[in-house]
Amino acid sequence: MNNHIPETGLSFERVVFFSDAVFAIVITLLVLELKVPHLTEHTESSLRHALVELLPRVAGFVISFLIIGLMWIEHHRIFRYIADYNLGLLWRNLLLLLCVSFVPFPTALFSENFWSRTAFILYTASFGGVATAKLWIWRHAMAANLLKPEITPEFAKRIARQSMAVPLACLLAIILSFISIILAPISFAFIPIFARVLDPTSKKSKQESATANEEAAA
Amino acid sequence: MNNHIPETGLSFERVVFFSDAVFAIVITLLVLELKVPHLTEHTESSLRHALVELLPRVAGFVISFLIIGLMWIEHHRIFRYIADYNLGLLWRNLLLLLCVSFVPFPTALFSENFWSRTAFILYTASFGGVATAKLWIWRHAMAANLLKPEITPEFAKRIARQSMAVPLACLLAIILSFISIILAPISFAFIPIFARVLDPTSKKSKQESATANEEAAA
Amino acid sequence: MNNHIPETGLSFERVVFFSDAVFAIVITLLVLELKVPHLTEHTESSLRHALVELLPRVAGFVISFLIIGLMWIEHHRIFRYIADYNLGLLWRNLLLLLCVSFVPFPTALFSENFWSRTAFILYTASFGGVATAKLWIWRHAMAANLLKPEITPEFAKRIARQSMAVPLACLLAIILSFISIILAPISFAFIPIFARVLDPTSKKSKQESATANEEAAA
Amino acid sequence: MNNHIPETGLSFERVVFFSDAVFAIVITLLVLELKVPHLTEHTESSLRHALVELLPRVAGFVISFLIIGLMWIEHHRIFRYIADYNLGLLWRNLLLLLCVSFVPFPTALFSENFWSRTAFILYTASFGGVATAKLWIWRHAMAANLLKPEITPEFAKRIARQSMAVPLACLLAIILSFISIILAPISFAFIPIFARVLDPTSKKSKQESATANEEAAA
Repeated sequence: MNNHIPETGLSFERVVFFSDAVFAIVITLLVLELKVPHLTEHTESSLRHALVELLPRVAGFVISFLIIGLMWIEHHRIFRYIADYNLGLLWRNLLLLLCVSFVPFPTALFSENFWSRTAFILYTASFGGVATAKLWIWRHAMAANLLKPEITPEFAKRIARQSMAVPLACLLAIILSFISIILAPISFAFIPIFARVLDPTSKKSKQESATANEEAAA
Repeated sequence: MNNHIPETGLSFERVVFFSDAVFAIVITLLVLELKVPHLTEHTESSLRHALVELLPRVAGFVISFLIIGLMWIEHHRIFRYIADYNLGLLWRNLLLLLCVSFVPFPTALFSENFWSRTAFILYTASFGGVATAKLWIWRHAMAANLLKPEITPEFAKRIARQSMAVPLACLLAIILSFISIILAPISFAFIPIFARVLDPTSKKSKQESATANEEAAA
Repeated sequence: MNNHIPETGLSFERVVFFSDAVFAIVITLLVLELKVPHLTEHTESSLRHALVELLPRVAGFVISFLIIGLMWIEHHRIFRYIADYNLGLLWRNLLLLLCVSFVPFPTALFSENFWSRTAFILYTASFGGVATAKLWIWRHAMAANLLKPEITPEFAKRIARQSMAVPLACLLAIILSFISIILAPISFAFIPIFARVLDPTSKKSKQESATANEEAAA
Repeated sequence: MNNHIPETGLSFERVVFFSDAVFAIVITLLVLELKVPHLTEHTESSLRHALVELLPRVAGFVISFLIIGLMWIEHHRIFRYIADYNLGLLWRNLLLLLCVSFVPFPTALFSENFWSRTAFILYTASFGGVATAKLWIWRHAMAANLLKPEITPEFAKRIARQSMAVPLACLLAIILSFISIILAPISFAFIPIFARVLDPTSKKSKQESATANEEAAA
């Protein structure tokens, strides 16, 4: 248990704090992509026209904000079940943060080129990268016995299976984008279905098992 | 009480910390809109002339800084009375942070186009959005029993009524801007009057009730 | 004692945390002013030439970094002696943070126009503003009885007197800049002399009094 | 022990928190250097072509992200063994943060001019500066008795010796760059060898000594 600490010397709280700060900065940097339009003539109609042209970027800002917000919630959800850490977990977490901090670039690229399959793939891949890194963190925590003792192996496996839903949906979206870029986003609607299929036990045992684990982890 | 935790797995402290970080970043990003002027001739008079032209942006920086500072104070004020949270509160808080992080854009837009009704409306609407999200958070906390047990329903209702003053003033300012953009900001002077009208009991019972609640919440 | 809390509802820790975050962001944003030069020909000599032209900006970056670092140390120094807060302290602190977050602009302006008296005055005034806000916070904390009970009135007055040294030096530098912009920075060398003159008791009683106060405050 | 506190008045936790925030901001600002390309014609092939041209910048982003991540881990590693601080430690830590916050500039410069020896030297020197500041912090902590009482002098000296590996490798890379810029990065592969040579005792005594120190420090 004590063996991995000499490698890192970080307190676990600081890892989570550092991650929180990166999430907060990235989510706030997104607005910098909304550049104030420079008008050729100073009239209401030309300003309104310029703002309408900005709408894809505003949509990109709002969507990316909400997705990063969701990822932040997910990040905490798994870190709440983790009791300990090692150097392997740290690097996997840095990889997750690398994907998070990369998000403003494909957001700007895609909102400026929403006709482009390349931009859509890069956008989807960066969020898929965060979800995959999260899955990797969880699998590492399971394998290296870093979970809280109250987490049952069954519950841990279920989260691992559910965590495959987002990477799979991103992969499907990228594949579908080669057929039609308008069809591709539909695959994200499959995330709850994937989660159900990947974890068939969830229906009956979710209620009591989750509650039991939560009570133990609280 | 325990039912909503499995959905999120976030500790309440982290939610407040994350919100603080977003407020701090946004309030600091505002200065980035103050671009150093590029002079055609390097003389004191041309520099001073260029700085005078920057004054509307400096005013926008100072005003937005103070308004965001006020919102940060308000954000903490209501979160201090909240004991617990659920996924609904998290999403409402993310919506509030979305409005906060959007502020630098209308600030830059309005300080560059202070003649424009469209820019004024966007500027007012973004601050109105923060105030509305705050009201929504509070109403949700009341409905979902997330308030500290010492908070009386009467006190909670009073804060809900007072919290309607800023959204109403923003709405009035937007309506007035269609008559005159110079008149419109006057509506913000109505905020204390609105707060008084919306909460007629405040006059007599404010003193003891607030003190009682505070003592309980401390 | 309890009277001011209803106005704000902020925990004192959060105020300091928020201030720390603003300091950290501002100190890091300074580097954004160092723009990578765009070369017309891609040779070592043209790159080196472009970098030499950047030296005033690099100097501005380093100097502003160190001054903000010093201000951060000073900010904590006084907040360490403060036990309580009220709305007046919050607004004075927001004013200090406003001056801090403004610093990147005059830094960029002055490092691009180091020949300009106007730029020098703006640069000096922004740092003088932080120091004046700090003095204002301290005087308010003294007047409103917000200091830790162990702080003797004598010790509090001494810090108030010493805190006048930096604003005075900034004022002197601005006045001197009308005679000669090269002479003006010399006034900063007077800060320790001002501190000595403003607080003539410091020589003999500093040692025991400071130690006593620190021990009490620890 | 108490003697240095009056100079600063900072709590040690805040120093680490402030450092964490600077690291988090710098690591996130790196992405801002990835500017969305402006296309002359809106086709997939022209977008893909523009993205391929961005690859050196993306590589610079990823490499700098990982190096700063590693430095953050190293920063915490040594601060975990430090029990106390003084003004000298604060200024050395500010110097380290100055080097960290400078990193985005040489990263952008080098990824745009990867043919340039000057850019490579600046890039290497900024990371070497962080490593040298870390070594300086550690030596100061040793000399001023700021280490935790459980840290043996032998263990402290070993970390000091190991900490010389990165500055030496950076120095070697800069020297080698005058022969060949392609050869120069090889010197970073020598870091583990340098660490072994500088600390010949590490092989046999590392296991028990590190464990003993960790247990004491935990």
